[in-house]
Amino acid sequence: MNKRIFSIGLALMLGAAYSLTAFSQVKPETLVKQRQAAMILQGKYWGPLGGMAQGKVPYDATVVARNAGFLEALSKMPWDGFAPSTKDVKSAALPAVFTDTAKFKEAQDRLQSEVSKLVAVSKGGAEAAVKAQLVATGKTCGGCHETFREKQ
Amino acid sequence: MNKRIFSIGLALMLGAAYSLTAFSQVKPETLVKQRQAAMILQGKYWGPLGGMAQGKVPYDATVVARNAGFLEALSKMPWDGFAPSTKDVKSAALPAVFTDTAKFKEAQDRLQSEVSKLVAVSKGGAEAAVKAQLVATGKTCGGCHETFREKQ
Repeated sequence: MNKRIFSIGLALMLGAAYSLTAFSQVKPETLVKQRQAAMILQGKYWGPLGGMAQGKVPYDATVVARNAGFLEALSKMPWDGFAPSTKDVKSAALPAVFTDTAKFKEAQDRLQSEVSKLVAVSKGGAEAAVKAQLVATGKTCGGCHETFREKQ
Repeated sequence: MNKRIFSIGLALMLGAAYSLTAFSQVKPETLVKQRQAAMILQGKYWGPLGGMAQGKVPYDATVVARNAGFLEALSKMPWDGFAPSTKDVKSAALPAVFTDTAKFKEAQDRLQSEVSKLVAVSKGGAEAAVKAQLVATGKTCGGCHETFREKQ
């Protein structure tokens, strides 16, 4: 077979497979891995901030500002991974994620709103104001996990 | 002891303790999970852009701009996860990650620099310019994987 035609054919095949993958047919297992990845990274960057909110970690305004910026991006990433197609994939997501979608969406919006406020106040805000916003942000994590995630 | 000096001493101590906790005493397995999470999400948001660069996915300026913004944050997240403590944890990282650290750092910087350019050009840039920058960005992914990641 002509090598060039073969290459083009292969590229088209890969392209077709890729298009399907990209838009509607991402495997449920992949969606779960991606949403869990977003949660892992939210944990990474929230960890020290949660410690600061509780006074267990020394306050560091630079770390708060940097991590808040990361969390602003990360807090938008998990949600499309909770597609209906993932309902039967083993994970810590409770059935309410798929049955009480309005409330789940509200919880996502609340997190994003609190994280946005954190980003704003972390840019030079007074320590007390930043800490208050850390507490408010932490509550949205806990509130959502309470209803939508298996007890860990 | 002078109270102020004591406070400074305490702050330094706590600072040191914090640095250890935050930066070097996270379990190696956790560091690997976190860096893999960052790679998974880079894959999620790069995927459609790579397809667009190759003309396999229809060009969509809104998706490019959004994903470029996410990638700007994500491209800063994996690297502290390649701590020396993770050298013996099973993963696709090749030994060169830990032996050729200068070259590995260069590859990280190159990615971040190309992603920053992508963010800039994706804000209203012409399709051809954006696509050229997508190609440049994709090369930094491939270049780094070539040297530092096991063949997949």
